[in-house]
Amino acid sequence: MKTSNSSRRDFISKVAIGSIGALSIPNILLSAEAEKKPKRISINTGDTILFQGDSITDAGRSRTDMGSNTQKGFGGGYAFLAAAELLNAYPEKKLKIYNRGVSGNKVHQLAERWEIDALNLKPTIISILIGVNDYWHLVKNGYKGTLEIYRNDYRALLQRTKEKLPDVKFIIGEPFAIMGSAVDKSWFPPFGEYQNASQEIAKEFNAVFIPYQKIFDKALEIAPGSYWAPDGVHPTMAGAKLMADAWLEAVKR
Amino acid sequence: MKTSNSSRRDFISKVAIGSIGALSIPNILLSAEAEKKPKRISINTGDTILFQGDSITDAGRSRTDMGSNTQKGFGGGYAFLAAAELLNAYPEKKLKIYNRGVSGNKVHQLAERWEIDALNLKPTIISILIGVNDYWHLVKNGYKGTLEIYRNDYRALLQRTKEKLPDVKFIIGEPFAIMGSAVDKSWFPPFGEYQNASQEIAKEFNAVFIPYQKIFDKALEIAPGSYWAPDGVHPTMAGAKLMADAWLEAVKR
Repeated sequence: MKTSNSSRRDFISKVAIGSIGALSIPNILLSAEAEKKPKRISINTGDTILFQGDSITDAGRSRTDMGSNTQKGFGGGYAFLAAAELLNAYPEKKLKIYNRGVSGNKVHQLAERWEIDALNLKPTIISILIGVNDYWHLVKNGYKGTLEIYRNDYRALLQRTKEKLPDVKFIIGEPFAIMGSAVDKSWFPPFGEYQNASQEIAKEFNAVFIPYQKIFDKALEIAPGSYWAPDGVHPTMAGAKLMADAWLEAVKR
Repeated sequence: MKTSNSSRRDFISKVAIGSIGALSIPNILLSAEAEKKPKRISINTGDTILFQGDSITDAGRSRTDMGSNTQKGFGGGYAFLAAAELLNAYPEKKLKIYNRGVSGNKVHQLAERWEIDALNLKPTIISILIGVNDYWHLVKNGYKGTLEIYRNDYRALLQRTKEKLPDVKFIIGEPFAIMGSAVDKSWFPPFGEYQNASQEIAKEFNAVFIPYQKIFDKALEIAPGSYWAPDGVHPTMAGAKLMADAWLEAVKR
């Protein structure tokens, strides 16, 4: 058993490092945290996977072509990159994958549209990335929310989901920000509290947690923030791929 | 040298098979044709890479946001997937990548917009996928072109490019079609002649040739055509990833 695990890890490591031969931040992270054994979930036959969140998930998706597995319905972000890879790799699993991210959303806005944009789709796996606007809009446009509201609304949203879909599995992405045209030093530590809240909630709901902040911080050792997310919030193509790779690592091979 | 080559191949093979653990058509292909040593090109620092072609390359890209490396400017096809991976993997190479595919284009229409949409961008690498409409539109909307026109126009286009950009490197994608709502048996063998022409031209211009037909044919052993390209021409997300992986294999690691 040990041999097979370690050879699998070796294999995964080669794959991740190799992707096309250069860096692989998520894998560096994985190695560094090997003892912590990052949690993963399995993709099963017939799974319905839902990507939910704000503009980073939205990434310009169509509002008219919203069926599962449709290019236009995915936009041009990490959700598209991750879904394309899953669909390519697992034809036999007959996955249905949806993107319902909406630009500008905070957690309470997810809640408002949750019936239609989540529960009615009967997902077996829900991936959520939410929180940057819950903090950003305090600064940007006078939103009156608090950390407590974020935390409570987030918890209530997952609780409500569990009641309706008891077997659903959650993937919770850490909201992230790097120095950029929209992000300055004043974000830290206050924004860090929102990040901590998302991690606590992930733990409470036995979710897989994707530490995007750590991933972007690592990426900054290789190229400047303008390469990954010029405004500090919205990833470039390179940044979106960084996220997709991390997301895919949350899915058990 | 031999050892290093074979260990590299071993490495590449692991990477490709592993991507996320399931199939890897391009790699199957690569193994099967190992003796033929598929040609590859290097990506160098400062390269400007241009994706050109028809709707398969276009994939819904923006016509207003057309700078290099922009998500919106790439649409949701193989060009986006391949570019995101390159940009993610090679921050230090400072690549500029453009997509200028246009839906419905035949080779003579590439020629009409070549000055603005290719030469002026001063690409060092041009990837072209063109030909399905040169055949399809004969059947579909009474286009009067011939195989000779396709071949001659294509050759003239590359010749003209070489004169203006003597050091440019070409990647030529094989036009492909599988049985689907827009493709029936009557396509073969006549469409095969267009495919052969693209391959001959690739050879003449010392281009890397990507055998997309073979790649889709292999994919059909794993899932039906509706999974990869329902109309037989336009790939799904899974099909686009298939193409992107094959494209990336054309790029030396």
